[in-house]
Amino acid sequence: MKEKLTIIKVGGKIVEEAGTLDQLLDDFSALPGNKLLVHGGGRSATRIAAQLGIESKMVNGRRITDAETLKVVTMVYGGLVNKNIVAGLQAKGVNAIGLTGADMDVIRSVKRPVKEIDYGFVGDVERVDAGALAALIQRGVVPVMAPLTHDGQGHILNTNADTIAGETAKALARLFDVTLVFCFEKKGVLSDENDDESVIPVLTPDLFKQYVAEGIIKEGMIPKLENSFSAIDAGVSQVVITSASAIGTEAGTIIKK
Amino acid sequence: MKEKLTIIKVGGKIVEEAGTLDQLLDDFSALPGNKLLVHGGGRSATRIAAQLGIESKMVNGRRITDAETLKVVTMVYGGLVNKNIVAGLQAKGVNAIGLTGADMDVIRSVKRPVKEIDYGFVGDVERVDAGALAALIQRGVVPVMAPLTHDGQGHILNTNADTIAGETAKALARLFDVTLVFCFEKKGVLSDENDDESVIPVLTPDLFKQYVAEGIIKEGMIPKLENSFSAIDAGVSQVVITSASAIGTEAGTIIKK
Repeated sequence: MKEKLTIIKVGGKIVEEAGTLDQLLDDFSALPGNKLLVHGGGRSATRIAAQLGIESKMVNGRRITDAETLKVVTMVYGGLVNKNIVAGLQAKGVNAIGLTGADMDVIRSVKRPVKEIDYGFVGDVERVDAGALAALIQRGVVPVMAPLTHDGQGHILNTNADTIAGETAKALARLFDVTLVFCFEKKGVLSDENDDESVIPVLTPDLFKQYVAEGIIKEGMIPKLENSFSAIDAGVSQVVITSASAIGTEAGTIIKK
Repeated sequence: MKEKLTIIKVGGKIVEEAGTLDQLLDDFSALPGNKLLVHGGGRSATRIAAQLGIESKMVNGRRITDAETLKVVTMVYGGLVNKNIVAGLQAKGVNAIGLTGADMDVIRSVKRPVKEIDYGFVGDVERVDAGALAALIQRGVVPVMAPLTHDGQGHILNTNADTIAGETAKALARLFDVTLVFCFEKKGVLSDENDDESVIPVLTPDLFKQYVAEGIIKEGMIPKLENSFSAIDAGVSQVVITSASAIGTEAGTIIKK
């Protein structure tokens, strides 16, 4: 029987404010068993880019990453945000290690081809080295992954944190019984967008289709849930969509077969 | 018999210019056997701090690290410089991993007490976890260490790269036959400061004392060599002082018992 592994993805907003970061570090530290954290950092990147006179250009919520912006995200995601989380977890007794995809070659990506939009130095994940991550996890080390990968030719590439969490979960599902938790602003997938308490407790593929057909689940939540079902199809045991403040509780929407 | 391990320390100047960095990556990649790289990054930190409107204050060649400067060095050393080296080494087939002292708790330090000078968030090394580093090295992973440590209470601390190299070498000397190589601008310790070719090939404690008495070795080179002899006394097999372009050759000054 496979050991359990919990993969938590938190957005930039949570890790960039001292109050919410400290709460996250407490909640994450208290999680029992094997675990892995994936973080964003977009707000800090935008702020520091602005201080450096670099304009942040977003298309469909994705950052256009030119050469100067790549330096900023490498600094901010791989340095400032990642190392503060690692030091914070160490203070709470969690033996964290900060990683980008370049470190131990854990995530190799390919620069996104230019079609209608040139996203610049943005990476699409090619493969995750589950063995290298498992070797750390099995020694009690907790990977803390920044949203950066590399192309194997010396270039760091900016990579969506949700994608890193999803691809890492899929790769590790061969070795562990993986629960993937996406933390966002709401308490889960809502059946009424105006009622924050209307959390749908469980979503199966059939229920998902039904809610989409009824217009209850719509817009940006559809691709997020399609990604979650794709992780399930690839062997991830369950995906949970919840708020960062609910880490360690049973709250949120559980996505399963 | 212990396995050999080569620890190379390079200053910021080498790793911050594309041409010298590429040469370093080639030379370091070609080194056979177990290896570990420690890097600086002060010039980039000063440049990016200036772009962010933060003045760099140096006392005795050491950076005064206030809260804002700490953010800059965490970004620049732990993110920009470290991850570019790691990605560059991966491209050359070296399975590098970037580390600060916070990662896997490899280097714990204490904030330097305020005496005549308040250096701010600067760490004096307390201990290096040789076992954690050895576990990586024995799996063929090559640590690339940024000049940052942590205090175990959630704070990153700016730490001199020479000190990190020296303390890491001492700690690993219990497990490996360690050669520590300090790369700097000259080809080695010179017997005539006006003749770059006048490299002293070997220094023993007796020869060192003699050269100091004769005024041949003086000023900033004295503490650098005292640190080297302290590493030898702590079990490091040899210390080499040479230029980055001489990595992998026999050139430079060899310091031994």
